[in-house]
Amino acid sequence: MKTILINLESDPALAAQLCQALDAQLGKIELRRFPDDESYLRVLTDCQDHNIVIFCNLYQPDSKILRLLLLSYTLRQMGALKVGLITPYLAYMRQDKQFHAGECVSSRPFAKLISDSLDFMVTVDPHLHRYDSLDEIYSTPSRVVHAAPLIADWIKTHIPKPLLIGPDSESEQWVSQVAELANAPFQVLHKIRRGDYDVEVTLPEVERWRLHTPVLVDDIISSGRTMLETINHLEHAGMPRTTCIAVHGIFAADAYAELQAVAEVITSRTIPHPSNQIEIASAIARATQELLQA
Amino acid sequence: MKTILINLESDPALAAQLCQALDAQLGKIELRRFPDDESYLRVLTDCQDHNIVIFCNLYQPDSKILRLLLLSYTLRQMGALKVGLITPYLAYMRQDKQFHAGECVSSRPFAKLISDSLDFMVTVDPHLHRYDSLDEIYSTPSRVVHAAPLIADWIKTHIPKPLLIGPDSESEQWVSQVAELANAPFQVLHKIRRGDYDVEVTLPEVERWRLHTPVLVDDIISSGRTMLETINHLEHAGMPRTTCIAVHGIFAADAYAELQAVAEVITSRTIPHPSNQIEIASAIARATQELLQA
Repeated sequence: MKTILINLESDPALAAQLCQALDAQLGKIELRRFPDDESYLRVLTDCQDHNIVIFCNLYQPDSKILRLLLLSYTLRQMGALKVGLITPYLAYMRQDKQFHAGECVSSRPFAKLISDSLDFMVTVDPHLHRYDSLDEIYSTPSRVVHAAPLIADWIKTHIPKPLLIGPDSESEQWVSQVAELANAPFQVLHKIRRGDYDVEVTLPEVERWRLHTPVLVDDIISSGRTMLETINHLEHAGMPRTTCIAVHGIFAADAYAELQAVAEVITSRTIPHPSNQIEIASAIARATQELLQA
Repeated sequence: MKTILINLESDPALAAQLCQALDAQLGKIELRRFPDDESYLRVLTDCQDHNIVIFCNLYQPDSKILRLLLLSYTLRQMGALKVGLITPYLAYMRQDKQFHAGECVSSRPFAKLISDSLDFMVTVDPHLHRYDSLDEIYSTPSRVVHAAPLIADWIKTHIPKPLLIGPDSESEQWVSQVAELANAPFQVLHKIRRGDYDVEVTLPEVERWRLHTPVLVDDIISSGRTMLETINHLEHAGMPRTTCIAVHGIFAADAYAELQAVAEVITSRTIPHPSNQIEIASAIARATQELLQA
């Protein structure tokens, strides 16, 4: 019985790292489109009686979900044992409550689709806000890799005198953990969100830490508005150049260029990007091994 | 109790025709994307205790399927009565058999996704080859609108002396039906397929029909190779200019331009295209009414 990893339209560099860390064979598939845009999918590696890990990074979920479901179906037909998913970024976690009548609370049906098709799931720091755990909506067994220790290690190695800053109250518990692991002070800001791209941030109290390097940490950089406004305040307060760290660098529109102009920008390898500096393959592999052996 | 039609990323002209033919209200939705590409979806029309028809044309299935599932989930949450689907073109019908080990017989999992989420489905001439009926794979009740009578009517109105030609043995039963309805002679060709874009066609016996207008009829024009090769033979045999009719005009790459250069090209309105001349809204509405009243 082998472990076979199949890379479904995701980062080949991370796939190679994962194969090595999992001691897995890289499985081969053939994918193409018919003229009506439907997918042709064939698994070229014999998967019967083997455990399969599909590496499909759902940070572009709408265009990937059907192929993921078709692949897991095909693997079961071929007689695979467990068929699990590694998705370093897990989409459809932010819509966890209905704010207006008729809104789709998409986290639930998305979780059901995944749970019905896969024997387990491994992800890195999903955006848990109103849910305490993935188990509230995912019925398939899951493991969450926490990037906090990896981020703390990176900070200890690279930033001599850091002041960690969490962008909002949601992040407090998480930033405090990174700060403790990095043995550094921290502050948590409060933000008022007016839309996907419009955010106001309260000024942090920085007098005490004027000689520290501000390190903004968040789970996701998307529009970058929160970080940009905070950096602006920190510059006016005379702080050293800021370092921005995120687990997931989505970087909508010009967010990366705008941030780079005023700060160092560091992300983990959950979404392929030039800012990737925090490696996650080993941690993902450990979590995956637990589920393969469960 | 009303019937509400919701247009999910499909032809607004056909949506308007369908609303009129169904005496349905056009429901409103809000759709946008978050920066990580996940969809935000909100139904703005009150759907509680009403029957809903989702008009979502699955000729680009991979990019639409998730939004379709999220919409049907949301409508059920809102207390809709029946939630059905009109998809004038139904994708994922061609992969009905495994030709090589590891191939995904995608028609089955796709049918299950749709069947699990929708109370009924109406489509126009799905590509039934090895399945005798949609019921073999779709557990949700369905109605198939047959374009043959609509095509026959078009031919009777527009072509004084037609010779109907079916491109392969699969089409025989279908072409013979159009021919009978149009009161016209027909021939069926045989083709050898070497790939999605590479097809050889046997020469039709045309001596008897030299003064007739050849009318090629097929369910789908995709690459157009079959029709182009046949037209070439017909031209060499001295036949009048050919008319090509298809239910579904997919027109991969330059297929439409190449066909137009040598023939008249006519399609039904199942896939929006300048060649649309055969109207389908009334027939779809009749089939939908049957299912709404079932």
